Amino acid sequence: MRHLVFLFAVLRLSEAATMTAAEPLTSWNETGAKQAIVNFVERVTEKDSPDFVPPAERIAVFDNDGTLWAEQPMYFQLAFAVDRVKALAPRHPEWKTKEPFASLLGGDVTAVAASGEKGLMEIIAATHAGITVDEFDATVRDWITTARHPKSGRRYVEMVYQPMLELLAYLRTKGFKTFIVSGGGIEFMRPWTERVYGIPPEQVVGSSLKMKFELRDGVPVLTKLAEVDLIDDKEGKPVGIQAHVGRRPIFAAGNSDGDLDMLQYTTIPRGDVDKSPRFGLIVRHTDADREWAYDRDSRIGRLDKALDEAKTRGWTVVDMKRDWNRVFPFAERTPSAGNVESP
Amino acid sequence: MRHLVFLFAVLRLSEAATMTAAEPLTSWNETGAKQAIVNFVERVTEKDSPDFVPPAERIAVFDNDGTLWAEQPMYFQLAFAVDRVKALAPRHPEWKTKEPFASLLGGDVTAVAASGEKGLMEIIAATHAGITVDEFDATVRDWITTARHPKSGRRYVEMVYQPMLELLAYLRTKGFKTFIVSGGGIEFMRPWTERVYGIPPEQVVGSSLKMKFELRDGVPVLTKLAEVDLIDDKEGKPVGIQAHVGRRPIFAAGNSDGDLDMLQYTTIPRGDVDKSPRFGLIVRHTDADREWAYDRDSRIGRLDKALDEAKTRGWTVVDMKRDWNRVFPFAERTPSAGNVESP
Repeated sequence: MRHLVFLFAVLRLSEAATMTAAEPLTSWNETGAKQAIVNFVERVTEKDSPDFVPPAERIAVFDNDGTLWAEQPMYFQLAFAVDRVKALAPRHPEWKTKEPFASLLGGDVTAVAASGEKGLMEIIAATHAGITVDEFDATVRDWITTARHPKSGRRYVEMVYQPMLELLAYLRTKGFKTFIVSGGGIEFMRPWTERVYGIPPEQVVGSSLKMKFELRDGVPVLTKLAEVDLIDDKEGKPVGIQAHVGRRPIFAAGNSDGDLDMLQYTTIPRGDVDKSPRFGLIVRHTDADREWAYDRDSRIGRLDKALDEAKTRGWTVVDMKRDWNRVFPFAERTPSAGNVESP
Repeated sequence: MRHLVFLFAVLRLSEAATMTAAEPLTSWNETGAKQAIVNFVERVTEKDSPDFVPPAERIAVFDNDGTLWAEQPMYFQLAFAVDRVKALAPRHPEWKTKEPFASLLGGDVTAVAASGEKGLMEIIAATHAGITVDEFDATVRDWITTARHPKSGRRYVEMVYQPMLELLAYLRTKGFKTFIVSGGGIEFMRPWTERVYGIPPEQVVGSSLKMKFELRDGVPVLTKLAEVDLIDDKEGKPVGIQAHVGRRPIFAAGNSDGDLDMLQYTTIPRGDVDKSPRFGLIVRHTDADREWAYDRDSRIGRLDKALDEAKTRGWTVVDMKRDWNRVFPFAERTPSAGNVESP
């Protein structure tokens, strides 16, 4: 009898160990995407592995819009900018006839969105320059806790992908340092990334405006200038990574062609002798029911070239519908086609 | 008898605890500077303190030249640049008549040094642009392990201040995150700061050139361009801190007027309600025997305005001769005037 009890205890322990190992990625179905992630992480973190990577070099970079949080029906930062333009419009009568402000104030968000991230940066520069970093920080903190997503009615920080939160946490428990590398504004993200993603301000890379330091009435002040410092998108992403991180990541996750250069920079060997293990991940928006479905023809988050290249480069394409059993933290777990093998 | 043994054991334990607490700063004499540092650190890290600062906000920034390593008889990066100019001169016949290259090749280092950090950046841009980040990294790694300081004959990474290494380590054990914020080139420092200071590449802020990303013959390449991105000196330091760290430090250490803005940014309250504890430290070069003695009239590392302001701002001025019993790691411990009170 005692032997049976012991055996049972061992079995339970064994099961518990398996559960613990799987637990970090519970919102991922038992499909190839999850397996590829876990295989890679074990390959670079297990002491005996020939591909072991020291903790200091375990740099993982994540795009934000469409990769960590949603980006439909418009980039969330654009929604923020719209609210700011409306709030500031009384002081800027010239905006009534000046694009992209006229379209924006007229409610033609599609026309504004069509101007892309560069257009977005113009609006940001025009509406957010000439104020201090502290003032901007306070404005973002206020907006992020009050504004609501037009479709879900949720606060924007709730529109994050639960599986990606789990992936960030999983990588960190495995000794990775996680960074955001986004085309979005660096100061737009910093006020909430630590709380929402567990990523501190010093690990946020994004598009930025130039700044000016001065003592104003004896008080130190940093002012945001109406001059772009870096567009952290496309070929700007590897530049932003080198500027802020100073070493090449071994893991990169994105969702659009804006992330193509970052994925290439992270994963393509630098020469015949470079055999170091690399991981590229693309979040593909395939779920019109639980989120949105868009890729090659989308104005926002267009995924075309990077999707083609994923095949030749061996990047893991996450099919949201197949690979995730939950999309948003507030949503219920949804067993889906890809989950048939799991209990 | 057993009671005595027990008492003895307690005494030894108590002594050991005291030793452990003091040990991190053994190269510091028991003078006011050390006491001020320890008092501040305990004030912001002890759980019951009204001035407790959460670990995430314990950001400490350090200038490099003259603060963490020596800067005489010329900025070490200038010595590196001199060696690079000499190596590249055969390919640049025009440098024979073009300043500051002509002076440099003619051995008139004083004339070159007089051009200041901006002149240094010109030389850097001219000699280091048009090569890849990887190539530059390899060049620095090679130089830093071979080149020798003209006075000491030591490798440059040995010309670091032992008390400052101890201070960096002490702050880190107390939950601080340590950053370098230097007028020197960011890519010149990154190849060795982790090994020498325990500061990883992503916590190094410095002057920088713009970069360009491309696939060259299918291989990802970042090239350094001949265009300055940031001069991380004077008013550029708070800008560099915000760009890279994204929050205001609570501890800043420098040694020259180039660090004045960083010290102001770190320590001056932002308003009447800002009562958060702040620490400013200035390393004053007062020891011509063990290191160098220079301040108000020096071309390199001039310390004039910041020294005056130290009094009104309450910054701690470290008198190298009085406050340090050892300067370089390779040097012997030297009991000095300031150490008379210690055993």
